[in-house]
Amino acid sequence: MTEHQKEVKLNSINTPDDLRVLPQSDLQNICAELRQYIIDVLSENPGHLGASLGTVEMTVALHYVFNTPYDRIIWDVGHQAYGHKILTGRRDVFPTLRKYKGISGFPSPAESEYDSFIAGHASTSISAALGMSVASSLKSEERHVIAVIGDGAMTGGLAFEGLNNVSINPNNLLIILNDNNMAIDGNVGALSEYLVNITTSYPYNKLRYDVYRGLRKIKLINDNRKGLILRFNNSLKALLTSQHNLFEGFSIRYFGPTDGHDVEGIIRILNDIKSMKGPKLLHLRTKKGKGFKPAEESAVEWHAPGKFNKKTGERILVNENLEQPQLYQDVFGHTLVELASTNDKVVGITPAMPTGCSMIHLMKAYPHRAFDVGIAEGHAATFSAGLAKEGMIPFCNIYSSFMQRAYDNLIHDIAIQQLHVILCLDRAGLVGEDGATHHGIFDLAYLRPIPNLIISSPMNEWHLRNLMYTACYGTSAPFVIRYPRGKGEQKDWRNDMQLLPIGKGRKLADGSDIAILSIGPIGNEVTKAISLLNGKASIAHYDMIYLKPIDEALLHEIGKQHTHIITLENGVRNGGLGSAVIEFMSDHNYHPHILRLGIPDTFVEHGTIPELFRLYGLDAEHIAKTIIEEIN
Amino acid sequence: MTEHQKEVKLNSINTPDDLRVLPQSDLQNICAELRQYIIDVLSENPGHLGASLGTVEMTVALHYVFNTPYDRIIWDVGHQAYGHKILTGRRDVFPTLRKYKGISGFPSPAESEYDSFIAGHASTSISAALGMSVASSLKSEERHVIAVIGDGAMTGGLAFEGLNNVSINPNNLLIILNDNNMAIDGNVGALSEYLVNITTSYPYNKLRYDVYRGLRKIKLINDNRKGLILRFNNSLKALLTSQHNLFEGFSIRYFGPTDGHDVEGIIRILNDIKSMKGPKLLHLRTKKGKGFKPAEESAVEWHAPGKFNKKTGERILVNENLEQPQLYQDVFGHTLVELASTNDKVVGITPAMPTGCSMIHLMKAYPHRAFDVGIAEGHAATFSAGLAKEGMIPFCNIYSSFMQRAYDNLIHDIAIQQLHVILCLDRAGLVGEDGATHHGIFDLAYLRPIPNLIISSPMNEWHLRNLMYTACYGTSAPFVIRYPRGKGEQKDWRNDMQLLPIGKGRKLADGSDIAILSIGPIGNEVTKAISLLNGKASIAHYDMIYLKPIDEALLHEIGKQHTHIITLENGVRNGGLGSAVIEFMSDHNYHPHILRLGIPDTFVEHGTIPELFRLYGLDAEHIAKTIIEEIN
Repeated sequence: MTEHQKEVKLNSINTPDDLRVLPQSDLQNICAELRQYIIDVLSENPGHLGASLGTVEMTVALHYVFNTPYDRIIWDVGHQAYGHKILTGRRDVFPTLRKYKGISGFPSPAESEYDSFIAGHASTSISAALGMSVASSLKSEERHVIAVIGDGAMTGGLAFEGLNNVSINPNNLLIILNDNNMAIDGNVGALSEYLVNITTSYPYNKLRYDVYRGLRKIKLINDNRKGLILRFNNSLKALLTSQHNLFEGFSIRYFGPTDGHDVEGIIRILNDIKSMKGPKLLHLRTKKGKGFKPAEESAVEWHAPGKFNKKTGERILVNENLEQPQLYQDVFGHTLVELASTNDKVVGITPAMPTGCSMIHLMKAYPHRAFDVGIAEGHAATFSAGLAKEGMIPFCNIYSSFMQRAYDNLIHDIAIQQLHVILCLDRAGLVGEDGATHHGIFDLAYLRPIPNLIISSPMNEWHLRNLMYTACYGTSAPFVIRYPRGKGEQKDWRNDMQLLPIGKGRKLADGSDIAILSIGPIGNEVTKAISLLNGKASIAHYDMIYLKPIDEALLHEIGKQHTHIITLENGVRNGGLGSAVIEFMSDHNYHPHILRLGIPDTFVEHGTIPELFRLYGLDAEHIAKTIIEEIN
Repeated sequence: MTEHQKEVKLNSINTPDDLRVLPQSDLQNICAELRQYIIDVLSENPGHLGASLGTVEMTVALHYVFNTPYDRIIWDVGHQAYGHKILTGRRDVFPTLRKYKGISGFPSPAESEYDSFIAGHASTSISAALGMSVASSLKSEERHVIAVIGDGAMTGGLAFEGLNNVSINPNNLLIILNDNNMAIDGNVGALSEYLVNITTSYPYNKLRYDVYRGLRKIKLINDNRKGLILRFNNSLKALLTSQHNLFEGFSIRYFGPTDGHDVEGIIRILNDIKSMKGPKLLHLRTKKGKGFKPAEESAVEWHAPGKFNKKTGERILVNENLEQPQLYQDVFGHTLVELASTNDKVVGITPAMPTGCSMIHLMKAYPHRAFDVGIAEGHAATFSAGLAKEGMIPFCNIYSSFMQRAYDNLIHDIAIQQLHVILCLDRAGLVGEDGATHHGIFDLAYLRPIPNLIISSPMNEWHLRNLMYTACYGTSAPFVIRYPRGKGEQKDWRNDMQLLPIGKGRKLADGSDIAILSIGPIGNEVTKAISLLNGKASIAHYDMIYLKPIDEALLHEIGKQHTHIITLENGVRNGGLGSAVIEFMSDHNYHPHILRLGIPDTFVEHGTIPELFRLYGLDAEHIAKTIIEEIN
């Protein structure tokens, strides 16, 4: 078959209906084309490569066997679903993936009826699919509902809560366990080992027969007790594989494990089990990055590799010159090692993001003092609380939008007990291409009402380091430091760390026409705006540093001196810095005109961070324009 | 032994040190006295009876074997811990339990060094204890850390995340599974069945020997393969008990199940296993309410029975006359049945609180349309999202403080997708005796920043019913209704339900001196305050009904007419109604003097609701006084 003919096949599939009329013998080629198309597009247009290469065959098989979109597939998490997007009417727009006004990097029901449920955060699919399956039962529909969940997502407590409820209600849920032994950074926990140990590699059937005969002989089992025989087989499997089958413990019928890259094999099994009543789980073994050698060999690096040369497999890396500004995450990572090197109480905790938050540096330097707990944000926070209760100083790093999953842990386990946990919220503010589920824009608003918390954000790398140092040595209160995705500002980011007085902001520029109050690195846009305006207005600029306790002396000064105030934050307008400033001014009978800049009351789509900043008027040019409008 | 002598024993125990010098033969009597003392005190002073009666023997055994407070016991949840409180220096103050300025109903490190960790919300103990145990390992301490977790709390995802991490780090954690087959309302999920099925009741040892011989004969096992034999025993246990041992699947050494009411037996096992390295779990079978017959027979009713006659076992019930105002929860429960009776899309979901939130009525009327998912708030919310995605109308009832555990599920699974989930937050506002962990005071503040949500609170029963009706028929947006613990206002609470226009408040009283804006039943305190003032001031009163969307027309009217405004909410001052009103006034250039009444930036202790209202100036008398102060 020529290259040309192959391409014609994928190009002829506009919906899964087109796929379903093909003979099974064509499907392997479809898979090859689909895989190549994903590689082609992602080499130019960065995205999550590894996960979607691993799911090519199951994607084709699922759409081939099931009647989508009437039958529902719920992907957990959604970056497994690129192949699904291509097969469901989005082949031609696939190169717009994760671009502003392009298609989303995650399933999005607003984008396609084939996207049954949103999935930006992990571990949600079983609960959501169970709800959908139970609804179908209540409506007496013959609808299949399929949750596809990775082994990494299985470590989340929500997945467990879902599993624990699956067998209780009448439903025909099918769970596909996409087991690539790898979340983002390698899988963590007993469950991971457990999944590795369920295999069929042992010459199992011969043994089973021998033991079966042995047990019959001593009359422990007989053919009339079929249920016991089934359990016997399960138990024997457990005996021979050294572990028990967790899923059978949840009264879920378990099938597998089987090769997740054998498309016809998967189709055969799906056809066998699709009409069985009751919840069931099919365990597929897959390889992350399958079909692209560099990605197969280094799954972590190729999880989301950026641009790459699809022929040579060379990643097109941005300049990693240490003289250039670094990523905030790396400043965090290196600084944590520095703090740990002089204080053996300092430990690090990350829920499955050691590379993403750069805690990998601590893991290398002090492996016994760095804890990757898997996708388990609630546990990360409460585990940190336990460490702090016994005198350790835990730096717990959680992406801002994932922190939403540990909200009660923060209130109940950390804040009430006033434990010395240092929460570093990476990816705070707009994150760009990952879109609505990942923007860390709610944190300032949802953190501010919690008593006993110190809440801060640095404007640059020096302040990030100083805040980490202050959190460690300046207080024993719970301390939040939020900082964004991406690069900082400073080439010489390694300063001598010093305490930043808690609850004190700073004045960066003096002026009489208007006061701008900002928090975090977005304050640099104000500096640029002032420079753009080049003296056209007399602008005072304050970097608040701390949202809580807020600098009341500074606010009194501002309230007394200014009739026009702009607040600026990389987060929602309702509830964060702007609200705090308005409340203060109102409480103290100052009545300036206050304009709050931030994210309005809407979920924000995907796009580059500069595009989104422009969209919401948060870049230097818009800020400059807004200043002039406010003054006039 | 006379009654007198018995009492002398318990009275001689001021700390566990006094217990540890007693001979083991005394302990059964100590247990009897401890149990009787709990019954005596709780018969007069309502509290959680059932759980603490079930843990008497394990409490005595743990303090007898372990060197508390150096060794740590973490109770999950804390209302198992009354016996622990009595043995650890709080015997004489035990009658102040849950009273204002008395001792807390939950473990509280601020109250005693024996209370190692807070535990008002369930499922936290394994994560917290793991942190404490790992910290001890890092510090090279020989400290024992023990988590005591009920089978109900085991259904929470956080417990699973903890279990999944237990075997990864060096630690000597001991988990005591207090298995009474009962959370509050009977246990839910596959795990519950699973725990019931691990028993030793089968004539197991004889069989094991026979099978062992059979397997040896066919050479499948031999004595040199000890590990295989251990696994064989586990597998055989699984075979014979129809389920696998979940805990062994997590690489945790499992012991039990054994009688949780045999104090000397427990001590023997604890001494055997306490020095074993690595994480281990001891499974104790207990009876909720043990030793008090009525409580043993009806565990749900006697979970927290209120006052009772300790001799006759008669509960001293408050008058349940249907002509009196009902509990808000019952108005919810009965109204849900009414809505379900005319709309087969209406379903109900509760995480383990069918009695507490009165969803029990729907469970009785339409058992297939009511879902108790166990202690699993995240799942409750995402499962509801799945149901809504397929066209059902789920009423998901979660206590306000527990909703903190489903915050991301609300944002990610419900709000982004704009799903028609109706979240009813019972126990919103101050809840009284359960204290800091249970006050539902953060919800208005943490909900307001979430886009797409409708947020409401009724001032009385009619409005609760109308809001439920409006949520069902007036919109397809996600809809939150918050209402407090306790009774409503109206005798004739069964109205003909009608739509309350979304985003519209109402004026209850006209006046020119000041405007009071309230949301929820706390507005009735304003009505009383106006009545108390008896014309001394001209007071306008607005019941906002909706926090979001807020009634902007009404706010414009108020902003134009009033120079003095008081906002009132049963929740934190920062971020809720008061903040919304201040933001609106500032944004629209109104500059009234605004006083926000609500909970200040602190965690609130326990006490009766009227006591706490007085403490924070939220009762009618304080409001009246505040009004006069504001006007003058």
